[in-house]
Order: sequence, then structure tokens, then C-alpha cells
Amino acid sequence: MSIIEKKLEELGLTLSAPKPPVGNYLGCKKVGNLLFASARVSDCVGEVGTEVSLEKAKEAAQNTVLAILSIIKADIKDLDLIEGVVKLTGFVRSSASFIEQPKVIDGASDLLIKLFNENGRHARTATGVAQLPFGASVQLDILFQVK
Amino acid sequence: MSIIEKKLEELGLTLSAPKPPVGNYLGCKKVGNLLFASARVSDCVGEVGTEVSLEKAKEAAQNTVLAILSIIKADIKDLDLIEGVVKLTGFVRSSASFIEQPKVIDGASDLLIKLFNENGRHARTATGVAQLPFGASVQLDILFQVK
Amino acid sequence: MSIIEKKLEELGLTLSAPKPPVGNYLGCKKVGNLLFASARVSDCVGEVGTEVSLEKAKEAAQNTVLAILSIIKADIKDLDLIEGVVKLTGFVRSSASFIEQPKVIDGASDLLIKLFNENGRHARTATGVAQLPFGASVQLDILFQVK
Repeated sequence: MSIIEKKLEELGLTLSAPKPPVGNYLGCKKVGNLLFASARVSDCVGEVGTEVSLEKAKEAAQNTVLAILSIIKADIKDLDLIEGVVKLTGFVRSSASFIEQPKVIDGASDLLIKLFNENGRHARTATGVAQLPFGASVQLDILFQVK
Repeated sequence: MSIIEKKLEELGLTLSAPKPPVGNYLGCKKVGNLLFASARVSDCVGEVGTEVSLEKAKEAAQNTVLAILSIIKADIKDLDLIEGVVKLTGFVRSSASFIEQPKVIDGASDLLIKLFNENGRHARTATGVAQLPFGASVQLDILFQVK
Repeated sequence: MSIIEKKLEELGLTLSAPKPPVGNYLGCKKVGNLLFASARVSDCVGEVGTEVSLEKAKEAAQNTVLAILSIIKADIKDLDLIEGVVKLTGFVRSSASFIEQPKVIDGASDLLIKLFNENGRHARTATGVAQLPFGASVQLDILFQVK
């Protein structure tokens, strides 16, 4: 078991089976030591600020990191090949007045840093959009550094 | 004629004259073996889900790939210098209830894979936005790997 | 004083104190010769096209470049380590009918090119979103090349 999966276990979290892409694209693509993970949307659906609370959206962001890690594991086999997190881009399906996107995306950032320690610290974009695939509340796109 | 242009011809597609940037930026920028193409919007305008159908938006996504390739050709001269596609980011100008952004962006992904085969497979983000430059239906941003 | 700061002085511009991140992320992250700056929102708040004019939003885009440079300076110490600008992504909080996002983001592009000359020329994405953190008018995300 990889160090990352042991940490997940300690945190009481598990990787579920990787979901297939919802279109004609890869789960992730490696170029040099950069691994571009395709964006994943949260299972949690609904507009944040009206249908979905900040707390629930933050949890959805955390769960979406797990979904991305399970896809990467299926591809590169060993999550310990991940050296760190470079950039996290988070889209929050926001109501007209919802402006706390950074707090939502902290749900993802917090977990990445717990898992990858200092190397898990990353640059970030957290932005608000009117709609997301399948009506999801959160969408994450992560750039990793790999061995 | 490049292999890519021959394939386009076989598909009955042609590169039109490259359109100049609509602001103070480059058509693309190379760093190491990564070529960042500037985002292009589709000629097709209108909100997807209300004014523009899924099928029309998907076709617009395909056409926008052609627009980007014509810009890259003007810059790097030979499209066969492209080794593959790393990451495709697609923004779909979506009505409040339109949630099929991935199907729209498949119009771009399908063509990239036809043109570049296995190396054309890519990581992807497909998201929904409320508005795009010039009221366009689709905007694409592509990261290529080049020789 | 760095060459870049001298140029800023000549332009009558100054770097203010770097603002801390508004969540659990870094101001920027370096991998190889790529420096990913975290997105910053403008101090200027309000929807562009209704509450905020194009001219004001363009100025906000310029000021946001300054905010990003002050954060990078705090991290890498010497702005002359920046070799050039690779990619600028700009999100404009747009009213339903505002379609001039490229003109807004030119406020950032123009300054980057004044500061870094030919190497400041960059690939770009300018897009419209319905909402941004803190209700800001503009959000910028810059990828630099560094020594």
C-alpha cells in the first residue's frame, strides 16, 4: 500500500473505484514531470449559496480530490510517484451572490496538504461559474509534479 | 504539406487564414516542449441550451480547433512539429440549465484524436460560463507538446 | 532595485505590500523553470458592464498584475529572475451582455509587455464568469518563465 493510501486510511478516507471519463479524454496526461489530471466534478450537485451550503461544498471539494486520486492511481498505479501538487484550479457553481469560492476550494487544498505535506502546497485559482457539467457544485483540475 | 494537413484534407476539413488576436497577446507561446495556444472563441455565437443546440455547439468546438491550428501553423510553420495534445480546456457559454458541456467539448477532442492519434489523447476541463468574448458559444484553450 | 521595479517607477507604478493568500494555498509555486502564480482578484469589486465600466475594469486588471508581482517578489525575492510571461488567464465578472473581456484583460497584458518587453508577450485566455471571490471584477492567473 502506498504511503498516500496509508495516510488516507489514517484520515478515515478511502479511494473508491475510478469513474470513467464522461467524454473522449484521458483521466490524466503526463508530459515530462508534469501530470495534468482532467477536471472532475463533484457528486454533489446544486448551486452553492442557494441549494448547497458552503460546508457541504467544501466537503464536495475534498471528495473530488479523492475521485481524482483514484483516477490517477488507475493510470500511474502508484500514488507515491506523485512528488507534489503544482496548481489547483477550482470552479464553484455559484449563486449570483456567493463570493466565498476560496473557502470551498480549501476543502481540496487542506486534503492535498495533509496527504503530500509541504510538497502538497500549491498555487491556486478558485473561481465562480454559473453552471457545471451535470449540475455539479464543484469542479477541480489539478496539476501534479511526478517522478 | 504536413501529415496533419493531409489528414484534415481526408476529413474534408481545411485550415482557413489565421485570425489575428483580438487583444495584446500572442497566438501561442512555447516554453521548452510545451506550446500554450491562446484561447479562441467560436465564430458560432449564442447561449448553448437556448439559442444554440448541443449539436451546433459541438460543431463549433470542432471548428475552433481548426482556428487554433491555423494560428499555430502561422507561428511554428509546420504542424508536424506538434507531438501531441496535453490539455484541452473548454468553456461553454451555458444557459442556466445546460449541463452537457462535456458533449460539446467532445467536438474538439474527437478531432484532435483523429488528427494526432494516440498522442492526441489529452487531459481535459469542460466547464460552463455565463458569458464569453463576442458572445461566442464555445472557447477553447489547448496545451500542446511540440518537438 | 531590480530592473522591473525601476521600470515600474518610471511608469509611476509601485508594488504595494503583498497580500496574504485568502485560503490554504501558496502565492506561487515553481516547478522547473515554470512559476505558477496563484490567481488574484482585483480590489475593484462589482459586475463589469453594469456596476463597473470597461475602463475601470481594465485599470483593475493592470493593478492586479502589480498585486501578483508583489506576491512573487516576496517569494522569489528578485523580480529579475522572471524571464518572461508564458500564459495569462483572465476571468472577468461579466454582466449577461458584456462581451469585451479581451479589452479588459489587455490592461494586464499591456503592463506585462511594458515590463518584460518581447519576453512579456504571452498566450492568453480571457473569459467571462458570473461571480468571483469577494465579488471582484477581475481575476488573473499568470504563468511565468523563470531562471
